[in-house]
Amino acid sequence: MRLFELAGRDPDLLFSPYCWRTRFALAHKGLAAETVPWRFTEKQRLAFAGASRVPVLEDGVRTVHDSWHIALYLDEAYPDRPPLFPGGGHAHARFIRAWADGVLNAGLGRLIVADIPALLDEPDHGYFVESREQRFGMKLAEVCAGRESGVVAFRATLAPLRTVLQEAPWFGGDAPDYADYILAGSFMWARAVSRFAVLADDDPVAAWFGRVLDLFDGMGRKAKTA
Amino acid sequence: MRLFELAGRDPDLLFSPYCWRTRFALAHKGLAAETVPWRFTEKQRLAFAGASRVPVLEDGVRTVHDSWHIALYLDEAYPDRPPLFPGGGHAHARFIRAWADGVLNAGLGRLIVADIPALLDEPDHGYFVESREQRFGMKLAEVCAGRESGVVAFRATLAPLRTVLQEAPWFGGDAPDYADYILAGSFMWARAVSRFAVLADDDPVAAWFGRVLDLFDGMGRKAKTA
Repeated sequence: MRLFELAGRDPDLLFSPYCWRTRFALAHKGLAAETVPWRFTEKQRLAFAGASRVPVLEDGVRTVHDSWHIALYLDEAYPDRPPLFPGGGHAHARFIRAWADGVLNAGLGRLIVADIPALLDEPDHGYFVESREQRFGMKLAEVCAGRESGVVAFRATLAPLRTVLQEAPWFGGDAPDYADYILAGSFMWARAVSRFAVLADDDPVAAWFGRVLDLFDGMGRKAKTA
Repeated sequence: MRLFELAGRDPDLLFSPYCWRTRFALAHKGLAAETVPWRFTEKQRLAFAGASRVPVLEDGVRTVHDSWHIALYLDEAYPDRPPLFPGGGHAHARFIRAWADGVLNAGLGRLIVADIPALLDEPDHGYFVESREQRFGMKLAEVCAGRESGVVAFRATLAPLRTVLQEAPWFGGDAPDYADYILAGSFMWARAVSRFAVLADDDPVAAWFGRVLDLFDGMGRKAKTA
């Protein structure tokens, strides 16, 4: 297997929240995949898969793109390995995914986006700055200028995560499952690109993320950071 | 079975989001339960169940309280009836519940709480106004004073619901399950107590709620409103 993953100038600096979801999903299934570093502006390199963004998984003659579809594919193609969706249902995880994409990633982006350009070479650097400044409607430095105070509101949006963690150690319940990897991807992204403390040390979400970093022989903890 | 449900002055005006979750859950399982109208200040009437809030379900000699525990109980006690958690897992629904309790209900409350006192007799009226004004730190009329503009921000928080509904008709996937009833309870609450339009007519969430109202022979649609 080969997994196309978003990388910075340094091919070992992997920082896409969506690629991290897939990387954890593969580890959960006990599947090895070679990393193929990919950059934002290399869209043509994904044409073989009908994709324009990563992650893209090559599994023999099959290609699958989009982290969600890859997760469903892995449970379908490898039913004898530990399920990413125990019990077979993935409907409820859709909401967790939608919240992570729309609320969590947006909130994290406002805290860390200004730290990303320094990790990129041209032409990615220019592409990233231009496209993100257009999205935010301001300079990236301005987006993050108030992050010391903005982080308070961000942390407040994580309240539903804390409620769940009062009842269970993982979002999958007694053991991690794809819901954990959805959320973990977001925090792996922030960890990879920025030293800004998005979580307070005593936050139960930080404790959960510490457990995530320990999974699979410390795979997340060993991952390169900026 | 008997279900203690929060009622207004009118014993048929049932308006607790949590009781509505249970009411839908019972209908899903095909179980009938007599409504016992209960008011906020009748805490001693629930002492037999070790509870201070509704819903409380009496099922023969067993009593169960807290809507979440009732849902788990119903699947456990009635495994031959349609499952509220198909596939057996309820871990991911915890997050939906936490989001509904913390984000959805809080957002709805700011839009509709001022409409509730008119539906209550003493001593509930005084209890409700005092406890809620303390919680909000202001008069209830002030909480809702800006709702014509505040509803815009509220509707924006529903974006993750819309993302899911782009992919599936129900939060349970192809068919409704307890995730739908968690969310439905919140909108049943708003519908019962207020004429304020919390959803725009063309919102996919409104279309979903319309389907909810049609379930179980129009149970929700027939429910009394203020």
